[in-house]
Amino acid sequence: MKIGILGAGSWGTALTVLLSDNGHDITVWSVDEKEIEMLDTKREHLTKLPGVKLPDSVRFTTDEQEVCKDAELLVMVVPSPFIRSTAKRVAPYITGAQTIVNVSKGIEDESLKTLTEVIHEEIPQCKVGVLSGPSHAEEVGKRMPTTVVAGAKDEKTALMIQDAFMNDYFRVYASPDVIGIELGGALKNVIALAAGVGDGLGCGDNAKAAIITRGIAEIIRLGTAMGGELETFAGLSGIGDLIVTCESKHSRNRKAGFLMGQGKTYKEAMDEVQMVVEGVYSAKAAYKLSQKYGVEMPIVSVVNRLLFEDLNAEEGMKMLLTRNRTSESTRLAWDNEQA
Amino acid sequence: MKIGILGAGSWGTALTVLLSDNGHDITVWSVDEKEIEMLDTKREHLTKLPGVKLPDSVRFTTDEQEVCKDAELLVMVVPSPFIRSTAKRVAPYITGAQTIVNVSKGIEDESLKTLTEVIHEEIPQCKVGVLSGPSHAEEVGKRMPTTVVAGAKDEKTALMIQDAFMNDYFRVYASPDVIGIELGGALKNVIALAAGVGDGLGCGDNAKAAIITRGIAEIIRLGTAMGGELETFAGLSGIGDLIVTCESKHSRNRKAGFLMGQGKTYKEAMDEVQMVVEGVYSAKAAYKLSQKYGVEMPIVSVVNRLLFEDLNAEEGMKMLLTRNRTSESTRLAWDNEQA
Repeated sequence: MKIGILGAGSWGTALTVLLSDNGHDITVWSVDEKEIEMLDTKREHLTKLPGVKLPDSVRFTTDEQEVCKDAELLVMVVPSPFIRSTAKRVAPYITGAQTIVNVSKGIEDESLKTLTEVIHEEIPQCKVGVLSGPSHAEEVGKRMPTTVVAGAKDEKTALMIQDAFMNDYFRVYASPDVIGIELGGALKNVIALAAGVGDGLGCGDNAKAAIITRGIAEIIRLGTAMGGELETFAGLSGIGDLIVTCESKHSRNRKAGFLMGQGKTYKEAMDEVQMVVEGVYSAKAAYKLSQKYGVEMPIVSVVNRLLFEDLNAEEGMKMLLTRNRTSESTRLAWDNEQA
Repeated sequence: MKIGILGAGSWGTALTVLLSDNGHDITVWSVDEKEIEMLDTKREHLTKLPGVKLPDSVRFTTDEQEVCKDAELLVMVVPSPFIRSTAKRVAPYITGAQTIVNVSKGIEDESLKTLTEVIHEEIPQCKVGVLSGPSHAEEVGKRMPTTVVAGAKDEKTALMIQDAFMNDYFRVYASPDVIGIELGGALKNVIALAAGVGDGLGCGDNAKAAIITRGIAEIIRLGTAMGGELETFAGLSGIGDLIVTCESKHSRNRKAGFLMGQGKTYKEAMDEVQMVVEGVYSAKAAYKLSQKYGVEMPIVSVVNRLLFEDLNAEEGMKMLLTRNRTSESTRLAWDNEQA
């Protein structure tokens, strides 16, 4: 299959390795001329995915027409704030016979739309799907075992994406719940910032497990209100991706939180991580969505105050760990006959 | 409150610190005379919780009558295979005015009963509750922030347990779902063995997140078939405890699996971990329960074959990571009108 990859960061580079392994004919596009030149000459992304070699057969370009031309499948993997501009840029070269799979994670800050909604708005003529799950680029680049979910509203598109990506070390399941998959992927980055803050403050594994557990509960509350399915949030692209992001040394979101927990300001943390920290964008959008849908999201709210209102990390963590609540679920009934 | 603690391992010792901090009058019992002598003279469990000092006010005894006498609350914290014999031993000294809270995790191998069921069978005259959640003893002993769930069928018993344990660093939520809390605590140890095997084989964070995600799905399938509530498995004593056990350096179950992943035999791994590995007992029981309730539990099945049938670690992990499944959930419907 002829595949175009839009974006050449760590995840775009790892997926280039994977899709080359699967025998596809790959062209990678980036807006960044220096990045494309480095990839083309060095066959390696020296800063974002060092140590992972790219095959000679892969072509690199900064020309959007070249990457789109004849590609059956286009992989959208630019950072979430650049999804709309990239979609606008490639739209003239996309036909109804092509499929776009979005593998970036986030929510558009202004419109509160998911990324496939943004892509569909800009390129209504083609099919749009999503691929998400616990999949750090560093491990996929090393061909370590990984499992993800491919989503599309119609089965044919989902199965086409599944077929393109699946191999021995990369297992792909299909699902029709596009909105659930996208929300899980976007919202987990916000929870990972909170988990990182706890790590930076020296909280232990017990506290982190509590943050992850309450984090998925927040994601489920908002996600189901927005039309996502509980099964999806309980699955690979929900709790699975949340766990990997909160626990892994590879996560930039967790690392940014960690630095803030250690006393750095938001700006200092961003400077030190260098790469795009999606959770910062998603935090704002998640807070607005929680207001819009009338859903309680205490972790999202604290993360917003940490990022944008100078709330102190220690104070913020205290607010999360000592909230007053006596029953774990208000739905379950007591049997007081025994008392 | 006068509290008796039955069992003086790492968790019993950590809870002695916690309950002493809360101002209770504590007596600790163990069948092991040497252990009691060490605790009494050194005020520290030198092998199982080194570095954590116990207050002078705590009394230690090997006399079951002494620990039970006048105690309003008894904490059952012996390893799961010794729950029935310990319950039998103390039963003559327990009155209907007393409450037992079980904090051990497991399922009785022969009867397939949960531990509170076993205790209730042996000591029908008193109230029995449970306390469980992501709570490694090493962190509770250091007063690090931890959140757990106290369960009892009637609210009064649950609130009494909650009051006894709760403080600034140890948050306790109440729940009526005793069976759900117990099954989450018992079954997670089996999944942690599998996660450890993956770690020992050098699988990464992506694979571990997949094992944890599928692990909680197995726990939910069996747990709800046995009468536990989905909310509980999605909460602290379900996914929360599963995460901490699969991710933490403190987990003996994960460590035993890790050693097996590195090529050690089951017996070598047990010898090296030294302390009781609950998951080994629970694995057998979980497999029998999956057969009894007709529930598919592939991870539990592979762990049993690794432990008791000489299945090779690499083969076992391959079976888990490459199972054939095309849809993540069979319940969700496609919208093929779009195709």
